Amino acid sequence: YRTIWLHPSDPTVVQIIDQRTLPFSFEIENISNWQMMATAIKEMHLRGAGLIGAAAGYGMYLATLDAGEKTFMKYLQYVADELKSTRPTAVNLARAVDIQIENLNKCSDKEGCITTSRKTAQLIADEDVLMCRKIGQNGLKLIEKISKRKNGNTVNILTHCNAGWLAFVDYGSATAPVYAAHDAGIAVHVWVDETRPRNQGARLTAWELLQHGVPHTVIPDNAGGHLMQHGMVDIVITGADRVTAAGDAANKIGTYLKALAAKDNDIPFYVALPSSTFDWEIDNGVDEIPIEQRDAREVKYISGFDGSGEREVLIMPEGSPVANYGFDVTPAGLITGLITEKGVCRATKQDIAALFGR
Amino acid sequence: YRTIWLHPSDPTVVQIIDQRTLPFSFEIENISNWQMMATAIKEMHLRGAGLIGAAAGYGMYLATLDAGEKTFMKYLQYVADELKSTRPTAVNLARAVDIQIENLNKCSDKEGCITTSRKTAQLIADEDVLMCRKIGQNGLKLIEKISKRKNGNTVNILTHCNAGWLAFVDYGSATAPVYAAHDAGIAVHVWVDETRPRNQGARLTAWELLQHGVPHTVIPDNAGGHLMQHGMVDIVITGADRVTAAGDAANKIGTYLKALAAKDNDIPFYVALPSSTFDWEIDNGVDEIPIEQRDAREVKYISGFDGSGEREVLIMPEGSPVANYGFDVTPAGLITGLITEKGVCRATKQDIAALFGR
Repeated sequence: YRTIWLHPSDPTVVQIIDQRTLPFSFEIENISNWQMMATAIKEMHLRGAGLIGAAAGYGMYLATLDAGEKTFMKYLQYVADELKSTRPTAVNLARAVDIQIENLNKCSDKEGCITTSRKTAQLIADEDVLMCRKIGQNGLKLIEKISKRKNGNTVNILTHCNAGWLAFVDYGSATAPVYAAHDAGIAVHVWVDETRPRNQGARLTAWELLQHGVPHTVIPDNAGGHLMQHGMVDIVITGADRVTAAGDAANKIGTYLKALAAKDNDIPFYVALPSSTFDWEIDNGVDEIPIEQRDAREVKYISGFDGSGEREVLIMPEGSPVANYGFDVTPAGLITGLITEKGVCRATKQDIAALFGR
Repeated sequence: YRTIWLHPSDPTVVQIIDQRTLPFSFEIENISNWQMMATAIKEMHLRGAGLIGAAAGYGMYLATLDAGEKTFMKYLQYVADELKSTRPTAVNLARAVDIQIENLNKCSDKEGCITTSRKTAQLIADEDVLMCRKIGQNGLKLIEKISKRKNGNTVNILTHCNAGWLAFVDYGSATAPVYAAHDAGIAVHVWVDETRPRNQGARLTAWELLQHGVPHTVIPDNAGGHLMQHGMVDIVITGADRVTAAGDAANKIGTYLKALAAKDNDIPFYVALPSSTFDWEIDNGVDEIPIEQRDAREVKYISGFDGSGEREVLIMPEGSPVANYGFDVTPAGLITGLITEKGVCRATKQDIAALFGR
């Protein structure tokens, strides 16, 4: 399975894994117009930097099917803005939409544009798969080195949120090196932050690792510092939703706290990302990356399985207010290195520019 | 209400607020023997450093009622060990048991011992109330100073877990200064960490503040770093379960992460505690304070209200392992100061010794 694909017999429909019901049931959703795709992104039927990029690419393609011939580009420009507004933090989404618009500006008739757009969407998805595979190979070397230093004893890796294959089209970013190491016979064990409020770690990363047979332990987000103080973590690897040209990394809220604890305990802290996650326009992540605020309901209520099905329960006084920031920014100074499809580099403007020839 | 008291008409029964059903319902539990008290402590019908101290004191009193005359002290020594083993991290519990044993060793006949023990239990509870009230007055001055510096604008206080009146016999430690400031007309607002896995922040601290009319906002534990990076926190105040003679503080798991973020953003980080929470025997908290590990079920399942009643739901794959450490230790170097009943001091061996004349 990939996380998103064109329907095998009906090319006007895109299929996705509906991640809202995982790990309790595995469901495929048919997306037959761009509005459904916008909802799927916003309401997090799918999520993750790479995957919402691919989804936006397919969303633009679906919009070409509905666009009238006379107002074609005007309509698509409108859809582009709508899709961009669904999730503001991850840069992959805006990038995918911009690539579609750029290519659509070059095609001539409607039929040709539809074909162009479908190919572009598939290209964005395929590119994501390729980049994640290379991230896995590049990150594997870091884990291999730690394994050797520990004489083959288990390498303990802490991760936050889900930057696994469910967050991308396939393989994932932060977990790609973990899968690669496990498949290469290196003993690894993953500490999985549950990642409140939506518990992508407990629900998705744990499920992924369980399916793949990778040893892991789920922990409350509060536990990482204690584990690091007591030598139970060898390396931290997280994903990212946007990384600035200077190496500041926006990722799921709480990542910054783990980076601080890693620094305090001399534990390497790596951010894994495809180059599509860089925002080359900005340097200062804390000041310049917009942080999405989401519905209070995601904090007040929690969804889980009660034997018969999934159910939502209230976990605090109904009358208490709530704040729900989706992401935080880890300053480059706390990051040991970036694992990209091009290789591993330090999180500095100079090293990033050198690696990507900018 | 206090959190624990002798039944007004039956002095062989101790009554407690059963905190497991808060904030969804308010229930009083009758505790009629020491075994019930041990269960109430272990299963967290009540919790919090000061309160489990008081509860252990009352537990010893209940045991005097059951003890045979010939084996009186032998039985009580057995009960003392049992009660001490219920929760290993907070030092208040062991201290209360030791005070009871010390006083019981001085009394002569069974009736006299029962009276001694009852008075001792009440004294421990009353002392807790008095100390928390003084902590409130001493901490108030810190909040007042920030309020003046901000020209009366709202002082934003972040707290973790529940160190409110529900964690003590009355007033609380970390929230005592907040209540004192609010009652003195100072504009305050509290960021309440929900405090996974048992959500004492979301369930208990939010409920307390709501009842008292103190403005507050519940946040996932992951959010504090982001708030501090953006100037939304003026001071952090937490409680403690054990503080070493050198100022290292064990508190609910996750506290250390907030202390790191406070340090990184130059925000004062205070720990509020009655002197009964000091462990004068040890200096190095990370190495020497035992950290309780609790049932995996507390992480795997979450309990909440679904309209008809409270219900537990599974929030991760049943097959994934879990770790559940109850506390972590914040090294003294990250702590701006300690707020005690004797006054505020720096978290250094010298300053602590000076304040307590040791």
